[in-house]
Amino acid sequence: MSVNRQFRLKQRPVGRVGRADFDLVESPVPEPAEGQAVIRTLYLSLDPTNRVWMTDMPQYLPPVAIGEVMRGGGVGRVVASRRPDLKEGDLVTGLLGWQDYAVAGAPGELFPPTVIPDGLPIPIPSLMGACGMTGLTAYFGLTEIGTPKPGETVVVSAAAGAVGSVVGQIAKIRGCRVVGIAGGAAKCAFITEELGFDAAVDYKAADWKEQLKAATPDGIDVNFENVGGEIMETVVGRMNLYSRMPLCGMISTYNDVQRPRYDLTPFLMKRIRLQGFIVLDFKDRYAEGSIQLAQWLLAGRLKARETVVEGLEGAPEALNMLFDGGNIGKLLVKL
Amino acid sequence: MSVNRQFRLKQRPVGRVGRADFDLVESPVPEPAEGQAVIRTLYLSLDPTNRVWMTDMPQYLPPVAIGEVMRGGGVGRVVASRRPDLKEGDLVTGLLGWQDYAVAGAPGELFPPTVIPDGLPIPIPSLMGACGMTGLTAYFGLTEIGTPKPGETVVVSAAAGAVGSVVGQIAKIRGCRVVGIAGGAAKCAFITEELGFDAAVDYKAADWKEQLKAATPDGIDVNFENVGGEIMETVVGRMNLYSRMPLCGMISTYNDVQRPRYDLTPFLMKRIRLQGFIVLDFKDRYAEGSIQLAQWLLAGRLKARETVVEGLEGAPEALNMLFDGGNIGKLLVKL
Repeated sequence: MSVNRQFRLKQRPVGRVGRADFDLVESPVPEPAEGQAVIRTLYLSLDPTNRVWMTDMPQYLPPVAIGEVMRGGGVGRVVASRRPDLKEGDLVTGLLGWQDYAVAGAPGELFPPTVIPDGLPIPIPSLMGACGMTGLTAYFGLTEIGTPKPGETVVVSAAAGAVGSVVGQIAKIRGCRVVGIAGGAAKCAFITEELGFDAAVDYKAADWKEQLKAATPDGIDVNFENVGGEIMETVVGRMNLYSRMPLCGMISTYNDVQRPRYDLTPFLMKRIRLQGFIVLDFKDRYAEGSIQLAQWLLAGRLKARETVVEGLEGAPEALNMLFDGGNIGKLLVKL
Repeated sequence: MSVNRQFRLKQRPVGRVGRADFDLVESPVPEPAEGQAVIRTLYLSLDPTNRVWMTDMPQYLPPVAIGEVMRGGGVGRVVASRRPDLKEGDLVTGLLGWQDYAVAGAPGELFPPTVIPDGLPIPIPSLMGACGMTGLTAYFGLTEIGTPKPGETVVVSAAAGAVGSVVGQIAKIRGCRVVGIAGGAAKCAFITEELGFDAAVDYKAADWKEQLKAATPDGIDVNFENVGGEIMETVVGRMNLYSRMPLCGMISTYNDVQRPRYDLTPFLMKRIRLQGFIVLDFKDRYAEGSIQLAQWLLAGRLKARETVVEGLEGAPEALNMLFDGGNIGKLLVKL
């Protein structure tokens, strides 16, 4: 490929993300300057946080500027390098952006890409999902903030998604009763039959609140919160005294123009510990988490699932799958 | 006194508490049955939580039933006893209720009263305030949940109140920059000039948000939350990454018919740890906390202030002082 296609943010999306919110710009494949490397993108990771980065609300990284290449995590291969830490042929992961070729060491870079050992017995998509950032999000959020004890009840929303599916499996490894909330029969079957969750709640069913009640006879000790909105409020209503709530995301609300609002009274009365977190908070411990996740995967205790969309050009529309429930497991774009 | 006056809850107040929400019932002074003791109430503690107990919202203790004596903490003296742990003349503290005489060991008792050593060099009102339940609330909430480090900025709302005034003084002892939010010049002068807070924000002033900003140039590391509502939201807006928020109460909203609602996005983006708590969570450590508070008081490092209202008959109206800002320090009724 002799051109570099880049999705540049044209305007801040209102509601759903559309193709019209981006310019698809073609330019020559970049050449590395001294201290830079050029990376061919192989896969892009689509995550709820992409939607947040498109807004200018206060957030944990700078918003993507209008005209800037859309920020996104990915895995790629170094095709040219003039820096000592990256050599041609290296497999790397980092914030490659929604483009065919990324420049490591370019101005404004937030984090440099890091090398992934080549030839691991784990396919790249799983290295990006269950053993990658979303797996680490699940691992640290559940174990460090949720602090589940054997026999406790853990509820996770967006349970068939990249993070939720790993949260539930780790909670099972930790000896918990695990209840997943997901949309539709296929996802519910996936988390109970394939992943071994104790129960699934189909939030698209009319009786989902009764399903949740029936699935949590002893209340809820850990709520790993991914979605926000009415689902979160209903779960909070069943949380126990001294329960914990790692707040990972509120995806059901990211397309809302108005930020939704919540009653904090249950947090006071039930002494719930709510802790927002981002996987970056644990960046000094990625190695520990990655090794643990890889061990579980190779031992068959952790199952990885991905939904792969082909072609960079489909990235903006594909992102909506996260909000529409169109993916199971990790959502990736293959370039 | 030969009669026992009791305030019995007649109806659940809507909005402000009124005398008409109670029946003032007279009955003979009770005689203790075997296993019981009768206690003459000396002081009643008026606390925001009294207002919560009057409602039937989900809460941390059973609501006061209609027709039941209004629940309230107090200090009294045993006047008759047929139980071995309490003897005539003992000074005791406990949930004596809004009545002249309480029966320890009566049906439905939540906690038995406990004896206070007589003759301590601390007056009873201070034993109920800075060295009592509200002092312990401040002590454990700040040190265990707020976990302030020297040099950090601690903000406390209702800062001239029973809990807030102690929170700020302990934070100063711990080497923090302390900013109190209070209503009116007299309270602001009290917390800065008498208690040694670094700054006060008068929330009744038109420019209070600018005052808060000026008083917290490095943001806020610990928000000891007592009031909820717009003040809380404004404080949260200035909280730092990885800051902590002990949620002690939301007094500004307890008279509201609709529970107010809040945006949780800042808790996610700034990874704020929010933890609801009630002093009862630390009941196994009351001795430790009381001794520490008493030591500080006797050493002159902790100042106690009380507002004392005379006469049981004024209790319902006096409770509104908490919501109107009518008291400085601990609010007590002297019988």
